[in-house]
Amino acid sequence: MQKATPWIHKVQYYETDQMQVVHHSNFVRWFEEGRIHALEEMGIGYDRLEAMGIGIPVISIDAKLVKSVRFGETVKIQTAIEKFDGIRLTVRYRIVRAEDGEICCTGSTGHCFLGEDGRLISLKRKYPEIYEAIQKLPTDFEPM
Amino acid sequence: MQKATPWIHKVQYYETDQMQVVHHSNFVRWFEEGRIHALEEMGIGYDRLEAMGIGIPVISIDAKLVKSVRFGETVKIQTAIEKFDGIRLTVRYRIVRAEDGEICCTGSTGHCFLGEDGRLISLKRKYPEIYEAIQKLPTDFEPM
Amino acid sequence: MQKATPWIHKVQYYETDQMQVVHHSNFVRWFEEGRIHALEEMGIGYDRLEAMGIGIPVISIDAKLVKSVRFGETVKIQTAIEKFDGIRLTVRYRIVRAEDGEICCTGSTGHCFLGEDGRLISLKRKYPEIYEAIQKLPTDFEPM
Amino acid sequence: MQKATPWIHKVQYYETDQMQVVHHSNFVRWFEEGRIHALEEMGIGYDRLEAMGIGIPVISIDAKLVKSVRFGETVKIQTAIEKFDGIRLTVRYRIVRAEDGEICCTGSTGHCFLGEDGRLISLKRKYPEIYEAIQKLPTDFEPM
Repeated sequence: MQKATPWIHKVQYYETDQMQVVHHSNFVRWFEEGRIHALEEMGIGYDRLEAMGIGIPVISIDAKLVKSVRFGETVKIQTAIEKFDGIRLTVRYRIVRAEDGEICCTGSTGHCFLGEDGRLISLKRKYPEIYEAIQKLPTDFEPM
Repeated sequence: MQKATPWIHKVQYYETDQMQVVHHSNFVRWFEEGRIHALEEMGIGYDRLEAMGIGIPVISIDAKLVKSVRFGETVKIQTAIEKFDGIRLTVRYRIVRAEDGEICCTGSTGHCFLGEDGRLISLKRKYPEIYEAIQKLPTDFEPM
Repeated sequence: MQKATPWIHKVQYYETDQMQVVHHSNFVRWFEEGRIHALEEMGIGYDRLEAMGIGIPVISIDAKLVKSVRFGETVKIQTAIEKFDGIRLTVRYRIVRAEDGEICCTGSTGHCFLGEDGRLISLKRKYPEIYEAIQKLPTDFEPM
Repeated sequence: MQKATPWIHKVQYYETDQMQVVHHSNFVRWFEEGRIHALEEMGIGYDRLEAMGIGIPVISIDAKLVKSVRFGETVKIQTAIEKFDGIRLTVRYRIVRAEDGEICCTGSTGHCFLGEDGRLISLKRKYPEIYEAIQKLPTDFEPM
């Protein structure tokens, strides 16, 4: 099990809505930022995966919005693996306000793996080195 | 119980990503399009709610992505009430490809109600006419 | 010269920012909505162009923001051809508030045409039927 | 005249479109990221401006897209003042690929200043300390 560093995101003005807070759709985008960062830290960049013809579509989204995030704040996005069997992957996220460690959002995304022909593949059988790299991702968040 | 018409959305080029399909964060935005449309059909526009000082933040998001949506397609967003007690509201959605009725995404969002001071309110006690209007929203999707 | 109908866009909540108006980046997205609609009316959908291997990247953007657009409003996006010689295309836009015809934004985008190998092509020589279809687009806005 | 550091932006997957490059509307968003960063470096955060009741809406956008930006790349956004008289402000931008310094996009945005009542104000007369801080922003890009 390796450690994963959080992904740092400075809240942008264009991410706000007229309720004066970050629009909730951005949490889903921040999950993606965290997921891509965590995979890159394991040496498995999305660009490399796509070059290999592997697609990792999102098949489910789950989020609890605990606290509003505002323009001017910075958030840390923590990523961990919830479930992974080589065919399905569930990634968990925690979005924490950098200033005081307050948890603003938790959630998860479910994924499958597609080969070049767009069909479901088993990473374990087809790309064992990617399978092993994902298995090394942390299964829990680092304490902040 | 009243009928609700679906909200029609033509998929835009800027909604796609390099996987050649609509980026999943847009489903969350389309849920919002459907929700606002359904509330408007009941005579409760977001602008009216905001003018009354009522905020309806999203506190949870849940989505299952069943089928990719592509540029050039049109989707219908159906909206129904799952739970509503005047304090909490859960809205369900179904995103259907207009061309053939194929279900592409289902999901729900959870909401609470905030008053002008940013505190939780009971719609039932504070704004009974809004409470009754929301209660009239359909609790199931219309057959397509 | 044919007539072109405006593209109708209902302003969405997620398009607003905390200045309580539509974020300016959305005007550039609305230009795209108008452009794609106008091309489709001429029988040249982006999907058909992409199937033919023709890319039409944006190489310049110009916009004047005359009046804020707000959530709850509907806009009409008018599109016209400013310049077109088969190699370069300049498209003009006018975004008008549907309620009262007030002009909110004017602008233009510049484009070139790429073939399947990613190189500049002359539509006139390579795809004369597309060239002629674009030439039939209106060169001025319809009166509202 | 002070030096300004560039703003670093890692290209996100959700910023791409199905042409396999960053969607052009994001350049306008990146201009905003650079502008806000440059103002903050001068001690004039947008949050402070908004707390003072000063709005700085965008009234014009101009961009030349020289080179596509792709997922996996990192860009530097450089910001400089083109014109500023206390009533109107024009900010220039240059978006450079971090890996090799290649210029991908240049452009500018025009702005005015609004007071709490939504009317045009002269920063020079009404908020001389903000006026002077903006005047200290660089008028040309740093060599990369």
